[in-house]
Parts: sequence; C-alpha cells; structure tokens
Amino acid sequence: TPESAERTSVPGVATGLAVTGVGGDVLFIEASLAPKDTGASGVTLTGQLGDVMKESAQIALSYLRSHDEGAAALADRGVHIHVPAGAVPKDGPSAGVTMTTALASLLSGRPVRSDVAMTGEISLTGRVLPIGGVKQKLLAAHRAGITTVLLPQRNEPDLEDVPESVREQLTVHFVSDVAQVLDHALSKQAAATVAA
Amino acid sequence: TPESAERTSVPGVATGLAVTGVGGDVLFIEASLAPKDTGASGVTLTGQLGDVMKESAQIALSYLRSHDEGAAALADRGVHIHVPAGAVPKDGPSAGVTMTTALASLLSGRPVRSDVAMTGEISLTGRVLPIGGVKQKLLAAHRAGITTVLLPQRNEPDLEDVPESVREQLTVHFVSDVAQVLDHALSKQAAATVAA
Amino acid sequence: TPESAERTSVPGVATGLAVTGVGGDVLFIEASLAPKDTGASGVTLTGQLGDVMKESAQIALSYLRSHDEGAAALADRGVHIHVPAGAVPKDGPSAGVTMTTALASLLSGRPVRSDVAMTGEISLTGRVLPIGGVKQKLLAAHRAGITTVLLPQRNEPDLEDVPESVREQLTVHFVSDVAQVLDHALSKQAAATVAA
Amino acid sequence: TPESAERTSVPGVATGLAVTGVGGDVLFIEASLAPKDTGASGVTLTGQLGDVMKESAQIALSYLRSHDEGAAALADRGVHIHVPAGAVPKDGPSAGVTMTTALASLLSGRPVRSDVAMTGEISLTGRVLPIGGVKQKLLAAHRAGITTVLLPQRNEPDLEDVPESVREQLTVHFVSDVAQVLDHALSKQAAATVAA
Amino acid sequence: TPESAERTSVPGVATGLAVTGVGGDVLFIEASLAPKDTGASGVTLTGQLGDVMKESAQIALSYLRSHDEGAAALADRGVHIHVPAGAVPKDGPSAGVTMTTALASLLSGRPVRSDVAMTGEISLTGRVLPIGGVKQKLLAAHRAGITTVLLPQRNEPDLEDVPESVREQLTVHFVSDVAQVLDHALSKQAAATVAA
Amino acid sequence: TPESAERTSVPGVATGLAVTGVGGDVLFIEASLAPKDTGASGVTLTGQLGDVMKESAQIALSYLRSHDEGAAALADRGVHIHVPAGAVPKDGPSAGVTMTTALASLLSGRPVRSDVAMTGEISLTGRVLPIGGVKQKLLAAHRAGITTVLLPQRNEPDLEDVPESVREQLTVHFVSDVAQVLDHALSKQAAATVAA
Ligand SMILES: [Ca+2]
Ligand SMILES: [Ca+2]
Ligand SMILES: [Ca+2]
Ligand SMILES: [Ca+2]
Ligand SMILES: [Ca+2]
Ligand SMILES: [Ca+2]
Ligand SMILES: [Ca+2]
Ligand SMILES: [Ca+2]
Ligand SMILES: [Ca+2]
Ligand SMILES: [Ca+2]
Ligand SMILES: [Ca+2]
Ligand SMILES: [Ca+2]
Repeated sequence: TPESAERTSVPGVATGLAVTGVGGDVLFIEASLAPKDTGASGVTLTGQLGDVMKESAQIALSYLRSHDEGAAALADRGVHIHVPAGAVPKDGPSAGVTMTTALASLLSGRPVRSDVAMTGEISLTGRVLPIGGVKQKLLAAHRAGITTVLLPQRNEPDLEDVPESVREQLTVHFVSDVAQVLDHALSKQAAATVAA
Repeated sequence: TPESAERTSVPGVATGLAVTGVGGDVLFIEASLAPKDTGASGVTLTGQLGDVMKESAQIALSYLRSHDEGAAALADRGVHIHVPAGAVPKDGPSAGVTMTTALASLLSGRPVRSDVAMTGEISLTGRVLPIGGVKQKLLAAHRAGITTVLLPQRNEPDLEDVPESVREQLTVHFVSDVAQVLDHALSKQAAATVAA
Repeated sequence: TPESAERTSVPGVATGLAVTGVGGDVLFIEASLAPKDTGASGVTLTGQLGDVMKESAQIALSYLRSHDEGAAALADRGVHIHVPAGAVPKDGPSAGVTMTTALASLLSGRPVRSDVAMTGEISLTGRVLPIGGVKQKLLAAHRAGITTVLLPQRNEPDLEDVPESVREQLTVHFVSDVAQVLDHALSKQAAATVAA
Repeated sequence: TPESAERTSVPGVATGLAVTGVGGDVLFIEASLAPKDTGASGVTLTGQLGDVMKESAQIALSYLRSHDEGAAALADRGVHIHVPAGAVPKDGPSAGVTMTTALASLLSGRPVRSDVAMTGEISLTGRVLPIGGVKQKLLAAHRAGITTVLLPQRNEPDLEDVPESVREQLTVHFVSDVAQVLDHALSKQAAATVAA
Repeated sequence: TPESAERTSVPGVATGLAVTGVGGDVLFIEASLAPKDTGASGVTLTGQLGDVMKESAQIALSYLRSHDEGAAALADRGVHIHVPAGAVPKDGPSAGVTMTTALASLLSGRPVRSDVAMTGEISLTGRVLPIGGVKQKLLAAHRAGITTVLLPQRNEPDLEDVPESVREQLTVHFVSDVAQVLDHALSKQAAATVAA
Repeated sequence: TPESAERTSVPGVATGLAVTGVGGDVLFIEASLAPKDTGASGVTLTGQLGDVMKESAQIALSYLRSHDEGAAALADRGVHIHVPAGAVPKDGPSAGVTMTTALASLLSGRPVRSDVAMTGEISLTGRVLPIGGVKQKLLAAHRAGITTVLLPQRNEPDLEDVPESVREQLTVHFVSDVAQVLDHALSKQAAATVAA
C-alpha cells in the first residue's frame, strides 16, 4: 500500500493491526535509538499507551535482549517506541509482535516488508499468543492494501469469520513463535543507510 | 501435557495453578535474565500483577539471593518475570513457589519438569504457607494433563474435597519448605543450551 | 507581526497555532539549554502541559537526536521547553512541529522566521500528521500579522473552510516531513550571538 | 511453641503480637540481608504493610544504624523485611520492637528465643512506647504456647485486664528501652551457621 | 517599610505582591544555596506552592542558568526557594519575577532594595508577561510602606483602577524584560558578608 | 519534668508544643544521623507528618546547612527526624523551631535543656514567624513541668490569654530569629558521649 510503503521505508517501523471503536485499523509502530552522544537513556514510550501495551514493550525489549545479537546497541543508547496518532489512547497486548518487529528491524537495519501487517501477543520466551478481532483486523489490512498478514497459530479458527473475497486476496501465515514473525516480516537486506 | 511440555522446555518457565472467576486454571510463569551488555537492570514485573503478587516476586528474589549459589547472576543483569496472558489482571500470594521455581530454573539452567504444577505462598525464610482453592486448582491441573502437583503441607486437609477419580490420577507432594519444591520440580540436568 | 518578531528574535522560540475555547490563538514555544557548568540535566517541561503535549516534546527530542547534527549539545546540558502563558493548561499533539522547530533553532543558532507560524503532529520518524482547527488557526495567524503558515499535507482539504479574504493574504505551505518544516521556518543564517 | 520454635530457628525472625478483627494473634517478622554480590540494595518491605508500619521499619533501621555494631552490614547489602501472611493488610506502630529484634538477630547471628513474643512502639532513640490490645495479645501469646512476653513499661496497668489463669502462665517483662528488649529476646549464642 | 527592610537585609530575599482571598498582600520570597560540603543537591521548593508556581521557579532557574554569570554556583550546591507563610497554599505565575530577583540577589550577593516590590510572570527568554490584581497589589504595597513597584508593561492600563492618592505615593516602573527588573531591584553593591 | 528530662538526655531531642483536638500537648522531636558506614543517605521523616510539617523539616535542614558549622556532617550520613507517637497524624508549621533545635543539638553534641519547650514557624533565613494556640500550648507546658518556653516575638499579645497563675510559673522568652532559640535551648556543654 502507498502508506505502509512510505511509513516502513526506514528500519524501525512495523505495520500492526488494531481493533478500534468502529472496526479495525492499521497502525504503525515506530522505534528509534538515540546516538550515544546525545544524552538519551532508558526506554521512552509515547502515543498514550495503556498499562498493558507498555508492558508489551517491556516484554519485546526483554525478549530481544536475550535473543537478538544486535541488542548490545540498547546498552548505552536511549530507545523510544511511539505509536501514532499521538492523542488516541491505545491499549491491549496484541501489538506485542509488532513492537518486537519494529525493534528487531531497528537493531538489524533491515526494513520491515511494506506488504506485511501483523498482530499477536508475545510472551517473554517469544511465544505468540492469541488475540481478538481477527475479522476486523483482516478487513482493515485488506482495505489498506496489505497482502500478507501474520496471525497467532491459535487464531486459525477465527479465519472462517473473514469473508471469502477478502481471504482470497490475503496471504495469512500462522505463527507460534516470534522468530517466525521476524522471518516473515524483515527484509532480507539491511537498508543502504540506516536512519537510526 | 502438550502445552506445559512446550512452555517449560526452556529453563525459566514454571507451571502454576490459579483460581479464576470460573474455576481453576494452569498458568505459566516466565523469567528471563538480560545479558550483561544490553543495558537492562533491576527487576521488571509484567502481566498486570497486583500488589500482593508483585511482593511475592520480591520475596522469591530475596529468598534466592540468600539461598541459591547462582544468584550472583542477578547482580548485573536485569531480571524480568512475566505471567501471561498479558491483559488479565492477577493477584494473590499463591504464585510464590512458582515464581521461585521459575527463577531457580533460570539461575541453574535446569528446566522445570513439564509434568509438575505447583501452588503456595512463600515466606522470606522459604517456608511454604497455605493457599486457597485447592479443589479448583487440582481439577485444572488434571484437565491440563499434569500428573504431579506440589501443595503446601498445611493444605493437606483440603485434599478430601477433591473427587476421588481426580486424586487417583495425580501424585500430590505436600511441602513445607521451598527447598522441597525445587527438589521436586527442577530437572536433574541442566539444559544443553541455556536460553537465558 | 510585532509580537512574533520580538518573541522570535533569539534562537529557540517558534510561533505555533492553537485552538482555544474561544477560537484560535498564536502561541510561542520557548526552548533553552543550560550551560554545562550550571548543574542542570534532563528535560524540563513547563506551561501546564497535558500528557499528550509532553509526549510531543519527547518525540521532538528523539527525532532531533537521530536527525540533527547539533543534538550532541543535549548530552550534558539540561533542556527546558516552556509554553506561555504559564497558568493556562494546554494539551494535544499539534504543537509537535513547533516544538521541533524551537529546539532545532536552539541547536543550530538560527532564529525562526518571525513571519512564519505552524501547526502539525510529528511522528518519531519525522512525518507530519494532520491536526484539527485549521480554520480557527489560520484566522488567528492572520489576525496576528503572520504571513506564512505551515500545515500538514493531509490538512489541504480543510483550507476551503478558510475565508477567501484571509487565504489570499497568507502563504500556506503543505508539508509531510518535519525536514520541510525546518527548511521553511529557520532563518538561513545563525544569529550573531546565541543567547542559549 | 512448635510454630514459633520452627519459625525462629534461624536468625532474623522474631515473634510479635497483633490485634486483628477477631482478637489477638501471633505474627512472625522475617528479615534477610542479600549477599553483596547479588545486586540487591536499599530496603524492601513486604506483607501489605501500611504507612505507619513501614515507618516503624525505617525507625528500627535508623535505631540500629546508630546503636548496633553489626550495622555496617547494611551498607552494601539489600535488607528485606517481610511479615506473612502476604495477602493480609497490616498497620500500626506496635511491631516496632519486633522489627528491631528481627533485624538485630540478623545482624548478630543470634536467633530470637522461641519462647518469647513482644509488642511495642519504638522511637528513634530506642524508647519503647505504649500500645493497645494488651489483653488480646496476651491471650494470643498464651494460646500459641509462648511463655515470655515483653511489654512496654507504660502498659503495666493493662495487665489487670488479663485473666488470672493466663497471667500465671506467662512471664511478662516490662521494658522502656529497646536495649532491654534485645537483652531478653536474643539467644546468648550466635547460630552455628548463619543463613543470612 | 520596617518589615521589608528587615526581611531583605540579606541577599536572597525579594518582596513580591500577591492577591489573596481578602485583597492584596506583600510576600517575601526567600532563596538559599547550601554550601558544597553539606550534601544538598537539586532544587527544593517549600511554602505549599501549587503546580504553576513551582513551574515559575523552574523557569526562573533556567533563565538565570542561561543569563547570569553567577549561575555556576548552582552546579554543585542545593538551591532552596521558600515562600512564607509555610501553611498557606499559594499558586499562580505572578511571582516569576520575584523568584528570579531573589535568586539573582543570592547569586550576586547584592541584596534586594527594601523599598521595591514587584509582580509579573516570566517566560523562559526573560519576557515579563501581564498578571492580574494590579489594584489590590498596589494598595497592599502602599499599606506596607513600599515606595517603588515594578509592573509588567502590558499591565499599564490597569493603573487607572488604582486610587489617585495611592498612585501619587508610589513610583511605578513598567518592565517588559526581567533584566529591567533586576536593574531596578538589586542594590548596586554586594553585601559585605554574604549569608548564603 | 521527668519525661522531658529523660527524653532530652541525649543530643538530638527537643521538646515542642502542639495543639491537638483536645487542648495542647508536649511532643518530642527526635533526630538521628547514621554512621557513614551503614549505607544510609538522604533525609527520612517519620511520624505520619503532613505536607507542611515535612516542608518545615526541609527548611530546618537548609537553614542549618547555611548557618551551622557542624552541617558538613550531613554530607555523607543519612539524617532521620521522627516525631512520636508514630500513629498520630501531625501537621502544621509550628514545629519548625523545634526541628531546627533537635538537629542543631545533634550536630553540636549539645543536649537540649530539659526545662525548655518551644513553638514557632521558621523561615529559610531563620526568622521565627507567629503560630496559633499559645494559650493551650502554655497550659500544656505548665502541666508537663516545663519552666521555660520560647515563643515567636509576634505572639507576645497572645500571652494575655494565659491564666495569671500559669504565666507566673513560666519564664517566656520571645524570639524573632532561630539563633536566639538555639542560644536559649542548647546546653552550654556537649554531652560527654554523643549517641549519634
Ligand atoms: Ca491498567
Ligand atoms: Ca497489532
Ligand atoms: Ca493492594
Ligand atoms: Ca500458583
Ligand atoms: Ca491524559
Ligand atoms: Ca501548534
Ligand atoms: Ca496512612
Ligand atoms: Ca508486635
Ligand atoms: Ca494544577
Ligand atoms: Ca509576585
Ligand atoms: Ca497538603
Ligand atoms: Ca512546636
């Protein structure tokens, strides 16, 4: 899609799927790392995130610290995760895989594929746990021109709620471990120049 | 059980038993330690844990600091304890032994036995104190395919509330000190490769 | 305008546009950096700013840390952002570009052009996202003698709500990236003497 | 008593007396010090303690810092005070002497005598101030098999409310300074092996 | 006046004007810096100050850090600003110039002139912004024997509300920049001995 | 009096006067400094003190930092101020002089005279400001066997409310600066052995 292509053109941005009051929507999760000499430290979370969603970010970071070779970059550089739009309150655990993907993209310099959107809770050991709103999320992905969607394995039964016409135009991968998510979502090549 | 086998296949995950609004349930407590060079420090607790459950985690850590030779690993590595599902509020002291077991598994590299589930409050000196909901917890363990359950010694009288048919298929060990819990729950051998 | 000329005569002050209970208004966002030897550190935000507006400041800082060569100045000097009037509560994401501009002006020593006012949410990657109240904001800019206004690209359709007579006296630039904002808003030359 | 003997068998545990909604009760205050190389620091208080009881712990620590030769151990080791049961809210100043005794036992390695229970507020200079509920507390001590009780000097008049039959089986020492409490409560010999 | 002469006899005290529930009043803003070797650090604000007034103190400090050569003294000495009476809640931005003057007096060692009182909001760049209650404040200054009052330039129209008889006995200076305030308010000579 | 003699026998304890719901009362303010090697730092305030009373303690400390040669002891030793009884909420500014006196006694090693009680708000420059409840406080001092009372100069008119019979048995000193308080209240000689 035009928007996700533009938004995910730099490493550190991943396309998620959310349920809102009026159906589903695509959202972009942005991550950045401050250069060492700019005085930033710790973790900054913005976008009016609720308690559960803030915990998802902590789980994503802890997972990557134990499983991603690039995580040493987190040691002395402040990390910031932002979810636009800035004034819209957001909560829930289903952005866990998207946060992990945005951060892994940033650490590796590999942009996220612009045709891929995802949703799923993650656990500290990297398991992908089921989420709600599969139907609305897939309709939103389809509307936004997404062609590949990553869903938790345990949400497979929910696919039958999705209209046949939409299902036929989406490639859906069911995943049970976040390593599978990263394998599907990250471009194979690092960006020529990494805008950290 | 299939799920507990999968979940506890790496060190740092222990199977607990909880009472929910609609009976008992099995829950998995996950612990991780960040590598030294990734900038993590202190203790992170996620899973929408209430005050009492957060205090249980502090007690588990203090107990292990004084009683576990591996506790030096806690000095310069951030420790994270997570209890899925991420959006479900949880509270109460009865996960104390399960938290201690998950952490001891992580520190020793010895996975928790997948056929064992447990419940019990711990004190700072390692005593195992009684908890509620024995009947619901044992029914849940049985349903989940667990074959061995660790219960506080003082909960022995509650066993008579559990249907004979269930009791016959479960091995129940009554324990008064968390050292007994660790002895029953931890595999005798460290995992070949420790995913910290 | 006389006031914005006076207010923006030193680097670190940018002219924003806000919606108030009684129409639109011009506001000035002030930024300062403490000299290294005065014991200030971190980020101070004043002006009775709400949660969303405080997050905008964090986003502006993170963006500049990754994209502005002058950001090393942030490492060991306390930064302070203030939005007068001090007793009036303010909130919302639309001051994001104005905060970024005030900070970029401070870091570069280039004053903000006094004929330019702006409004727009920013994302962590520097995208300019749409805001509300275009009509009231342009009327306020016009009343205050502003001649150039920077608006988010996606707010282009809102321009038709603005009276023809006002539109004709304003140059409006539509922007989609904060780099365009800085290009339009910052004077080409650094001030002779920078009052930090 | 069997329980207090078991609970106070290691240094760092003292037997207190409390008033609950349904009479008096014996409670055990546990203290632990983390080994230096395990990353713990500061003071951790658990057991759902209220404001006043948390302040009692701070007073106990400050008193010992100025009066106990062993207090240097507090410098670089995290100290933890826990009062089971973990889920029961507790408050009030009357555990002051018991907290001081548990900590002094820990610092000296001398276990608390298992036949002794105590109650009393402490001040920063070590004075023992009067408390409420003498009758209920002595009945509870008696029920639990305690044979020696330490009470504030100023509570001497309250002893007449205690049934003759109970008073005859208890040795009551009235104390005005916490040094007297420690003299009565701590075993004369350090434990062979100190479980810190 | 006798009281302001006494109160402002040492550097670090400035005379402000406030509106209370029952008219206007003179208040004294006191500032102190702790000697380096006494373990104080950071900024302490007392006098039951509200959010807006606390922000005024932060603005005053940031302004001086960037504009006062003496500000290096702030680096390693704790600064304390107190506004008696201690139990009376106070709020609002109008003490900004008074706080700045008290701090500048402290940093320079020059006492504040005892015949001068002042009121005005300050911005981060040192602009003096208008305040309310001009009439009540001038009546209070007059009652207290003050002979010179510093007011924001933009409050000039409010002077017509002040009775002729009072206006004739007060010298009023209208100021737009806090540098003008300091020029009017600080004695030309440093005190012989500075009580920090 | 017997009680104040006992309580003030060590440096760091001063006798104050308070108004309670049922008249006046004598209270003892205790201060302690932790030895350097015991890991304490900062300021600890206990006794269920309200906001205003906590601010009084901060003012007392800042005053002494600037005016007491012994204040260097505060640099690396934790200071603790406690006001028994531990469970009784207390608030108000009138304990300012008593807190200052307790701390000055501690820093100098000179005990507070046991026949002296005091009340008064202090400002940051050491001025003694007026308080309420003079009649009740003097009655309470008299009842407690106190023979010398220190009152704020501005409370002199309140003395006429005190019964002649009580006034005749009390020596009242009116003070306007806390230096006068310390001169009246501290014993001329340091204690032989200082229990810090
Ligand atoms: Ca919540
Ligand atoms: Ca999502
Ligand atoms: Ca709670
Ligand atoms: Ca459990
Ligand atoms: Ca909010
Ligand atoms: Ca704006
Ligand atoms: Ca309370
Ligand atoms: Ca007790
Ligand atoms: Ca407020
Ligand atoms: Ca003022
Ligand atoms: Ca208050
Ligand atoms: Ca007092």
